[in-house]
Amino acid sequence: MIIALDIMGGDRGPHVFLPAIKRCLSDHSDLSFILCGEQDPLNTIFSKLSQSHQSRVHLRVCSQVVDMHTKPTTALRKLKDSSMRVALNTVKEGEADACVSSGNTGALMAMAYYVLKTIPGISRPALVSALPTVTKQKVLLLDLGASINYDAESLLQYAVMGSVLMQQVEGIASPRVALLNVGEEDIKGHSLIKHADLLISQCESVNYVGYVEGDTMFSGNVDVVVTDGFTGNVALKASEGIAKLVISEIKAITQETWFARLISKLTLPLLKSLYQRMNPDQYNGASLIGLRGTVVKSHGNASEDACFYAIEQAISELSQGVPEKIKTIIEQELMEH
Amino acid sequence: MIIALDIMGGDRGPHVFLPAIKRCLSDHSDLSFILCGEQDPLNTIFSKLSQSHQSRVHLRVCSQVVDMHTKPTTALRKLKDSSMRVALNTVKEGEADACVSSGNTGALMAMAYYVLKTIPGISRPALVSALPTVTKQKVLLLDLGASINYDAESLLQYAVMGSVLMQQVEGIASPRVALLNVGEEDIKGHSLIKHADLLISQCESVNYVGYVEGDTMFSGNVDVVVTDGFTGNVALKASEGIAKLVISEIKAITQETWFARLISKLTLPLLKSLYQRMNPDQYNGASLIGLRGTVVKSHGNASEDACFYAIEQAISELSQGVPEKIKTIIEQELMEH
Repeated sequence: MIIALDIMGGDRGPHVFLPAIKRCLSDHSDLSFILCGEQDPLNTIFSKLSQSHQSRVHLRVCSQVVDMHTKPTTALRKLKDSSMRVALNTVKEGEADACVSSGNTGALMAMAYYVLKTIPGISRPALVSALPTVTKQKVLLLDLGASINYDAESLLQYAVMGSVLMQQVEGIASPRVALLNVGEEDIKGHSLIKHADLLISQCESVNYVGYVEGDTMFSGNVDVVVTDGFTGNVALKASEGIAKLVISEIKAITQETWFARLISKLTLPLLKSLYQRMNPDQYNGASLIGLRGTVVKSHGNASEDACFYAIEQAISELSQGVPEKIKTIIEQELMEH
Repeated sequence: MIIALDIMGGDRGPHVFLPAIKRCLSDHSDLSFILCGEQDPLNTIFSKLSQSHQSRVHLRVCSQVVDMHTKPTTALRKLKDSSMRVALNTVKEGEADACVSSGNTGALMAMAYYVLKTIPGISRPALVSALPTVTKQKVLLLDLGASINYDAESLLQYAVMGSVLMQQVEGIASPRVALLNVGEEDIKGHSLIKHADLLISQCESVNYVGYVEGDTMFSGNVDVVVTDGFTGNVALKASEGIAKLVISEIKAITQETWFARLISKLTLPLLKSLYQRMNPDQYNGASLIGLRGTVVKSHGNASEDACFYAIEQAISELSQGVPEKIKTIIEQELMEH
């Protein structure tokens, strides 16, 4: 199993990947890396690996970097020797099995789409991420990719892809798939959503449970939530924002009085436990699915732990053969329509 | 100041309004109510008021009720003697100054639009609510009304209306208004959002600060966030969902071990303080703005406290003359375009 890792994209610099590389190499004896990036950081990372790990790490020196402000179209046209593009190329050429990058999401989606192409029957790749619920089970939300042109068929494809990913990676036999709407009653929502509702309900491979609202998607009663890329992106970020707000309120309250400060010392283990459960790091590693290859997007501001989870996500998808399984279902289901 | 109160809409039954009615009548000596609802609950509420309060409460017996499953079009056509419709009629006829209802949002929006009409220059009313931020200042989010057909001009109107509401009710001299998007860079977002961005930036009455993302809207760096009704509804509910999730995690953690249970007894005041700060009750009372009258929507599941805040919201808007001020700005700004 070979993973192409674009080490240049993150906000914290390439070194943030080093502990994740070490840990993944130790955990998976059949794993090797192709690290793509500029000469200096590649050398630094390589020099800090043990000899046995070095033998499983290949370096690919690139002359360009896609930064956070690069337009996707510019990245596509002008940054052909960027670490992101080179990493994707290795997957296309069959040198690597999967690509992990924490770079500019828009550029990664555009490049991955261009380089790897979508599975036949899929109009565009979707960005999907896991979120916590009130039960211990995660919920997958897709599309998060900020795509703005979509139709009922794309939502159907997201339903199929989300369902396959949940089955294969989280091991849920028959994931409950819901469509995000502004009400759970049939009368709510616009015509495009209603059309998607009809299409998904007719799809035999999907265990479709109907509409879900923004609040009930965290109830643990559904496993996959389907929406368009704009709404999904806003819902994800609004959730992140409010979670941070609650945590900051807790911190503020525990500092207010001497009694609160004393109590907060005692509650430190509880707060840590809360933080662990809500820990955004575990929910790092948004997958780009629907492509003829495995691509995982790590958060731009990902910590060392978060980088590890992103690589683990790619390894899970690879070992479960997610793209192949999506291809099979799509052929069975969608090509008939 | 006369408020028409539809006592029939809420999930908890009409009695939930009783403490709010008492408290508001005690707090505001110039306030009176027109209570609209079925005979029995009206009588029950009335019988529980003191004599001096009874003299400021008028009863309007209605034969119909709009329930949560009624389609807006059905409510409009067939429920002309519903408590919701009668309450709105009293505002139209000048008998009452404002209407408060915790009934079916879609029906209330449709009826209010039909009965009261919009301010000239406003294409449709918007539903707006306040949310907490990391600073102590609230942020207004609009539209939450789940409306699906919108254009750049509607977003501009929301910007103006949100700005006026924040100025008048929260007393912010020059509210910072932002447009919700999937990125803060100019390159992000679709053409409709870009068009709205241009229109709002040219509007002199609005202190426009550009794009904001789903997470940064809770930062306290903006006062008003403008978006379409579908996205706004999802963002609001996703935020409510994640806030509930965090609170439930805290509860679960504090019950896990004997040490945690002990500590949680000590931290009870802190948790209560957190709950107070995040208290959804205070953020109850979504306003329907852009109408030729004041209408406040209380949450269907509103508690006694929440009902009080919804009525207080209507009182604030009335005493600040929000509809008149929106009308003035719209005449100045929008009629020129």
